[in-house]
Amino acid sequence: MTEQELRDPNRKPSREGVLRAMAKVAEILPPTPLLPLEVDGQTVWCKAEMLQPIGAFKIRGAWHRISDLTEEERKRGVVGVSSGNHAQGVAWAAKRLGISATIVMPENAPKAKIEATRALGAKVVLYKRPGEDRDAIAAELIAQTGGTLVHAFGDPWVIEGQGTLGLEAEAQLTERGIGGPIHIIACCGGGGLSGGLALACPEATLSIAEPEGWDDVIRSLATGEIVPVIDQHHPTPCDALQTPRTYPINFDILKNRVASSAVVTPAEIAAAMRVVFERLHLVVEPGGAAALAAVLAGKVVPVATPVITLSGGNVDRETFVRMIGAAA
Amino acid sequence: MTEQELRDPNRKPSREGVLRAMAKVAEILPPTPLLPLEVDGQTVWCKAEMLQPIGAFKIRGAWHRISDLTEEERKRGVVGVSSGNHAQGVAWAAKRLGISATIVMPENAPKAKIEATRALGAKVVLYKRPGEDRDAIAAELIAQTGGTLVHAFGDPWVIEGQGTLGLEAEAQLTERGIGGPIHIIACCGGGGLSGGLALACPEATLSIAEPEGWDDVIRSLATGEIVPVIDQHHPTPCDALQTPRTYPINFDILKNRVASSAVVTPAEIAAAMRVVFERLHLVVEPGGAAALAAVLAGKVVPVATPVITLSGGNVDRETFVRMIGAAA
Repeated sequence: MTEQELRDPNRKPSREGVLRAMAKVAEILPPTPLLPLEVDGQTVWCKAEMLQPIGAFKIRGAWHRISDLTEEERKRGVVGVSSGNHAQGVAWAAKRLGISATIVMPENAPKAKIEATRALGAKVVLYKRPGEDRDAIAAELIAQTGGTLVHAFGDPWVIEGQGTLGLEAEAQLTERGIGGPIHIIACCGGGGLSGGLALACPEATLSIAEPEGWDDVIRSLATGEIVPVIDQHHPTPCDALQTPRTYPINFDILKNRVASSAVVTPAEIAAAMRVVFERLHLVVEPGGAAALAAVLAGKVVPVATPVITLSGGNVDRETFVRMIGAAA
Repeated sequence: MTEQELRDPNRKPSREGVLRAMAKVAEILPPTPLLPLEVDGQTVWCKAEMLQPIGAFKIRGAWHRISDLTEEERKRGVVGVSSGNHAQGVAWAAKRLGISATIVMPENAPKAKIEATRALGAKVVLYKRPGEDRDAIAAELIAQTGGTLVHAFGDPWVIEGQGTLGLEAEAQLTERGIGGPIHIIACCGGGGLSGGLALACPEATLSIAEPEGWDDVIRSLATGEIVPVIDQHHPTPCDALQTPRTYPINFDILKNRVASSAVVTPAEIAAAMRVVFERLHLVVEPGGAAALAAVLAGKVVPVATPVITLSGGNVDRETFVRMIGAAA
């Protein structure tokens, strides 16, 4: 592909795009550790994305997108829509490049995420979830400012950027002398990360995990067409995975690639957070623990060397303390 | 020095020994991340040793020591004395080499540490702290078995091994393009880590942090001779730093090298643990947070690029939840 094709906003994201994103990400972000965790005598490799500067993998896609803006686009700023991790990714990348950023966030997002986004210099516009239409609010902001929308998952740059996680993990396994096929199990919200991983690692087996009540991607894959979540009021601790419906750009990648999937419960998520606390000494947020929860619960059975995404660690202290449950 | 001199149990530990240890450690342990943390507009570089396979830096010294045992010594096994992190380091290294390990541990050590040591296949002998003499118990075990004592800090291999943390951090700063002088602030128990760092980084400024009531190294440095802790009953959350007195091998290194020091309170430790939770998404145990606590409290003021040790993350859930204090 030509450089112009690789920057076309209407392009299909590609492995070539992931490789281009990797070169850009590697310039500014050291690889996050790939940590071994023994589960029933098998080593599960955990990609510790909470150790990114913003505490989540979302920095990858946001950096790939925003660093590709033209001078003219940079002047008009960027607009993001996010419950918090993508918000921080966009704010971080914009700050680094001296670009103004406005983020539309649900008012019930974790306090830690709203505060961190503001601390990175972004303007935060709150909306009520569910009820108000966040995409409409973003569209109005863009009409006012001429800014560029950086969508949380339905964007070719964002998908390619998230895929760099997979390239990094493969390289780290190779460094450790571990060859052979891999089985990636990813936490799934809108399908930005899992779509990127599908492109990045074409030989890998791919599974996705979604939280109970927010399993629209899994149901879409089963149905063969995009269906939304049934009840947007369904409570979940996984704020990072509360996407009402996936986009065609994500669905088209995933529909022929997802080998298996799992819907995980809040109790399974809590158990995974405890294991990460006790055995890896890491703080994983509920949405970032879905993939490990699926493996620990036996809902996804690895068919090759397992690599799971610990996608983020932005969780309020109160929620963390409640989830890891001192008495449990 | 000759290979024989570098393996002499009565040698003074040396920088050459640290370099030798580094080559051995690098073969089996990937470097732990060196993570930036903004403190009052200054970047403090945090060495995340809780991400070691045993959740603490102690694996470095234990590996250097135990991997140097002769075939004959290996057959007779090793004996360690530790509240838990060194215990796991010894157990891990012994298991990897197929050597039997017996560890003398205080019965009030964190449950997580006792269980983890047993899970690594070591035999655990519990003693009452304070009251029973752990060194006497270890001496009796050694008399029975002919095993080799792997002391937690007063051993040339252990000191050299811990020093590898400093070499790694220096290399990581260089990779990030950060040059110039560094100021290492280390959590201090018996002086194994800080002694190793002093040897590893001869140009660095070195500070140590000890917990309230257990500041015997700081008092020894002030006095000019080794003095024990005043009250071995003084309660502290920092089980990893509860050493009643340092050893001459440690004191001799530190006496002309420690530029400044700080005694930190339980409240300052808790504040540091919260910062590590919220901003780095890591679990640090109380004793592993002492160095950061000293910086955050303004008790150690960095005079060059600050590097601090987040020494370990082996903390019981109950203690962690209490220390990070949901309501605080």
